[in-house]
Formats: sequence, structure tokens, C-alpha cells
Amino acid sequence: SRSLNLAVIPGDGIGQEVVAQGLKVLSSVLPQDVKLETREYDLGAQRWHRTGETLPDAELTDLKGHDAILLGAIGDPTVPSGVLERGLLLKLRFAFDHYVNLRPSKLFPNTATPLAGRPEIDFVVVREGTEGPYTGNGGSLRTGTPAEVATEVSVNTAYGVERVVRDAFERANSRPRKKLTLVHKNNVLVYAGHLWKNIFDAVAAEYPDVTTDYLHVDAATIFFVTQPERFDVIVTDNLFGDILTDLAAAVTGGIGLAASGNINPTGTFPSMFEPVHGSAPDIAGTGKADPTATILSVALLLRHLGFEPEAVRIEEAVTADLAGRDGTVRTTDEIGDALAARVAG
Amino acid sequence: SRSLNLAVIPGDGIGQEVVAQGLKVLSSVLPQDVKLETREYDLGAQRWHRTGETLPDAELTDLKGHDAILLGAIGDPTVPSGVLERGLLLKLRFAFDHYVNLRPSKLFPNTATPLAGRPEIDFVVVREGTEGPYTGNGGSLRTGTPAEVATEVSVNTAYGVERVVRDAFERANSRPRKKLTLVHKNNVLVYAGHLWKNIFDAVAAEYPDVTTDYLHVDAATIFFVTQPERFDVIVTDNLFGDILTDLAAAVTGGIGLAASGNINPTGTFPSMFEPVHGSAPDIAGTGKADPTATILSVALLLRHLGFEPEAVRIEEAVTADLAGRDGTVRTTDEIGDALAARVAG
Ligand SMILES: CC(C)[C@H](C(=O)O)[C@@H](O)C(=O)O
Ligand SMILES: CC(C)[C@H](C(=O)O)[C@@H](O)C(=O)O
Repeated sequence: SRSLNLAVIPGDGIGQEVVAQGLKVLSSVLPQDVKLETREYDLGAQRWHRTGETLPDAELTDLKGHDAILLGAIGDPTVPSGVLERGLLLKLRFAFDHYVNLRPSKLFPNTATPLAGRPEIDFVVVREGTEGPYTGNGGSLRTGTPAEVATEVSVNTAYGVERVVRDAFERANSRPRKKLTLVHKNNVLVYAGHLWKNIFDAVAAEYPDVTTDYLHVDAATIFFVTQPERFDVIVTDNLFGDILTDLAAAVTGGIGLAASGNINPTGTFPSMFEPVHGSAPDIAGTGKADPTATILSVALLLRHLGFEPEAVRIEEAVTADLAGRDGTVRTTDEIGDALAARVAG
Repeated sequence: SRSLNLAVIPGDGIGQEVVAQGLKVLSSVLPQDVKLETREYDLGAQRWHRTGETLPDAELTDLKGHDAILLGAIGDPTVPSGVLERGLLLKLRFAFDHYVNLRPSKLFPNTATPLAGRPEIDFVVVREGTEGPYTGNGGSLRTGTPAEVATEVSVNTAYGVERVVRDAFERANSRPRKKLTLVHKNNVLVYAGHLWKNIFDAVAAEYPDVTTDYLHVDAATIFFVTQPERFDVIVTDNLFGDILTDLAAAVTGGIGLAASGNINPTGTFPSMFEPVHGSAPDIAGTGKADPTATILSVALLLRHLGFEPEAVRIEEAVTADLAGRDGTVRTTDEIGDALAARVAG
């Protein structure tokens, strides 16, 4: 009999609430013969306030033993900015070598978009997850004085860029439109930009069926609002991917629907799935959080672990649920219940 | 009698065409007693192909002698990416210490926006212009091999951040809504981010009438499309400002209307004014380029040099011209003529 051994990190704010719905739908969609085990990890703002810890080594080691990780949201205004992000969320992404940060963007039927004319949007951003300006390299000198100098170093390696670019070509090659866009800023960030562009062009030669193009990140934001239908697969660096996927979430009807996977394609470490949205402390506890992004992240998790039919069932349930929304306000729990019912075998 | 001694760098692609219209409107709006002198500098792709030069020291010195610089656009696909940007455009911004890169965004009446519901948009981005990831610090090791490492270093100083933050507070304080938003990514880029945030908070204490807030750059892109009316003045780093102002141009009806000033507020060096758009080689020579962004950049130039009534006349002429546009396609030249006629004394 099959099994699924999941680590769950609800985290902060609405993280708790949306993860509960994600697990509800997961239990409902899994075939009877799959034994689901979950273990919850108490990590995030409260833990830090209580103990000063963000992610102790022992827990990092324990997390390694699971098939995958489901994460809600990390971050709270009562914790100095960066402490939980660097010490917990990014620590996980780096320690578990999540080099493919996969972020699909789709404008579902009956979903509000800020864009006039409702363009067709269905693309996926392959965001590099272990390099770029996210490495934590940098520092500050004469901190807090008028002579302070603070640096941030974006680190890019051929090793790191090639593996994520290859992953993106594979994904583009398996989609009907077979189109891949590289986004960078190689007219200014010439060292990193040329590394990305050269590797992209070299790998492109192995994928004659994939149509490629290149956009500077500033120009890409323009197309995200004027012509988002032009995109199929986008591959980009860690920081540009962060910025573009929030914008993508906004144009496809909001951060409440944007799912993501932090994937370690080699399987050496567990991959981690989380909504793109943050902990939204302003609405935590009100039942207003939309758990759909987390539930769609569960679909990505299932697909990654080989449960393709179950992943599709969740995505179809979300599509049907959104198509049926008539403006009636439902709570976090009610949306979770509705989706759990739809995916039930 | 007053005089205006202008350096003109038409540059590449449509740069030539739009600058011609900018100068046409400038001549038309200037009072009779102002002696306008212009000197054109042949810089850009053609010059580089011919001589290999981007911006020789002698010309940099000559440029220094002008009251201001009007620039069209720099960049061409026949020149390796980065050569002209780093060797000419950014060289000017850095050599002339253009630390305030001023980019107003306004949704003019009768102007197409990709946003449904036509929100009111009228904000200005104060983009730092001499630091951040634009300094050219970085390099690459084992270039072109599978072991390549490429770095880009974002350099941020208290000196550089404080002066641009002060400029932004002054601007916010002089606007009716008196609101200033700092945009950064201080939960990940903690060294640079904390420097920016600490200085921002310290200067804020001197401006009790200015309402302030902070947004991560990813969240800021969401508000640019869902709630752009929430912004008044934004201050941000060089790269985030680059990305956000293209997005701002897109939501306010296109890059054809977005003006900018690269300002050296101390007056030690000439400031430089240019449209936000690029050289658009695909439409160069077709008469399709909209010169309005350049003409609005001329208004910023005039304001900077103390010709406030003339700046306002141009802005009013553009508003009236846009209000009167009925879909009839006009050439670059025709739009320039129409605006020159409107501003004529
Ligand atoms: C919380 C933050 C560190 C994170 C990031 O910047 O990657 C978030 O914005 C995201 O996109 O997952
Ligand atoms: C051409 C390029 C170097 C430039 C920049 O990145 O600053 C442009 O995009 C701009 O915004 O003026």
C-alpha cells in the first residue's frame, strides 16, 4: 500500500487557517489505499517569541525525513523584518536545494482581474530558488552611522543557472505552445545577465521545438499587464521571479489563488509547497482568508509525488468552484468544505 | 537676457525622431527673450559601430558645460547588450551624479489603460540613480565554463540613500496628499533594506505632516494594478525603481507618455531628461513613435531650470491634446506640430 508522509508548517497569521483547509482537501482526494501521515512543526513567529529559535538543526533534520512539506505562511509584524524569512523560509529553500520555484498563473473563469478585456492568461514562472540576490551574501559596514555602506551580492553560477534553465525547457517542451521566455536585466546586470543568456541560448539549441525569447524585467512587467497571453513558460532569477509572480497573481485575480512549489527535482530533499501570499495578519482569525491558493499548492504537491489524477481532480474542483461563485461571501472553512466535497472519490 | 544652453543626445532608433519634436515644442514655448542654444552630440550605436567609442572623456567634459541634457533613447540590437547602457547612459547618470531619477506617472484623460475601471493615477516615483545594483560592481570567474560564477553587487550608502530620501520627503511635503511610500525588499535584502528603512524612518521624524508607509517591492506591484490611486510619492532603489516605473508607465496608458528626469539637485552637474521608453528599433523611421514622453520630459527640464510657467504650459497642452485625440492616427511629426502650436505664446 502507498503512503504519504507529510511535514506541515502552518506558520503565521492566516497560515494556520489555510493549511487546515489544504489538509482537509488532501484527505478527501487521496485514494483509500494511501496511508496519509502528517506531522506538524511549530515554527514561525510564536515559536521565535517563545524560544528565540527560527529553525533548529534537529528539526531541519527531522523535516528531511518527509516526502514533502506543506507550508502556510511565514512572517509577522512583531518580528524584525528578515528574521523569519531568512532564518526559516529561505533556510528551508536553501537547505533543501529547492532550485525550481514553480509558480503557475492562470486566469480562472468567473474570476475578477484588474485588467480590462479579460485576456487569456495561462503561464508558469520557473523562478530560480537557490541563488541570485537571495543568498544572504553581503553585509554592512559602519552600521547606523552616516558613513554606512551596505551591500547585497547576487551570486549566480553556471551550475545553478543551467539546472533551472533545463527544467524550464523541459516544461515548455511538454506544453502545447512550447514557448519559453527568459527574463533578466542583462543590459545592466551584465555579469549575471550574460551568464543567464549564454546558458539559455546553449540549452535552447537542444530544444529545437521550443520557441524562445528574451525580455528585460522592466519590459516584462509591461507585457504582464498589456499582453499576458503572450507568455507560456518564463524562466528567471530569484528576485525577478519574486516580483513577477506577485504581479502575475494580481492580474490573474489575486494572491488568494496563486500556488507555488519549491521543488528539488532530484528528490534528494523534500520539496515544499506553499501559497504565494503572505501571512496577512490583518485578516488572520476572521475567516476571510481564501484557502484556494493553498489547496492548489496541495495539487502541485500531489503532482510532484506522482498523484497526477488527484492533482487534476483538485484543479478541476477549483475551476468548477470558481465558476460557481456568485458573490456570496464564504468563510475559509466553507470554501475548504466545498472543495473537499467536490474532490471526494 | 536669459539663455538656455542645451546638450542634445538623440541616440538610437526613435530617439532621433522624438528628440526633434521635443526641441520643436521647446522652441515654441520659450519666451522670446530666452536665447536657446543647442549642441547635438553624436553618441549611440552608430558612433560605436564607426569608432568603437561610447562616451569619450572629452565629450563628457564638454557635456558638463551645458545647462541640461535632452536625451532620446540609447540601445540597439546590433550592439552587445550592456555596451551602450553601461558605457553611455549609465556613465552619464553616474558621472553627473543624477541621484534623483524622477518619474511622474499620471493617467491622463482619454488615455487607454489596461486597467479595468480606470482608477485615478497620479503619483511620482523618486528612483535612486547612482547606487544599488547599477554600480557595475561584480564580475565573473571562469567565464563561459561550467564552473562559472557571476556576481552583481548592490552598493548602498547612508550618504546616497539619505539624500534621495530627503528629496522624496520634500516632494511629498509639497504635494496636496503628502504621502510617501518606501519600496524595498527588506525581509530578504536585509543589509540594504535595513539601511533604507532606518534612514527613511529617521528623516520621517522631520516631516510630521507626511504620511509614510513601507511596501515590499513584490507587494507594490500588486497595488500598482489593483489600487494605484493609493500612491502619491514613492521612493525606492535604482533597480526596483526601474521595474516599477515601466509598470507604472504601462498602467497609465503606455510607455509613450512616460517622462523622466535624471536630476542632480545640487546643480554641480547638468541634469538629463529622457523618455522612459527605449529606442524601439522596430518602429524607428516609421513615424509611429509618440513624442509625448519626450515632450513631457522637456517640461521636467524646464521646471528644473526655473521655467515653471513654460513647464505647466507644456503639461496643459499635452492634457488638452490627449483629451482631443479621437483615434485618428497621427505621425510623430504631427503630434509634435500640434503640441508646438498649443504651447506657442
Ligand atoms: C516572504 C519572502 C521571503 C518570499 C520571497 O521573497 O521569496 C515571498 O515573497 C515569496 O514570494 O515566497
Ligand atoms: C536602458 C536601461 C539601462 C535603463 C535603466 O535600466 O535604467 C532604462 O530601462 C531606464 O529605465 O531608463
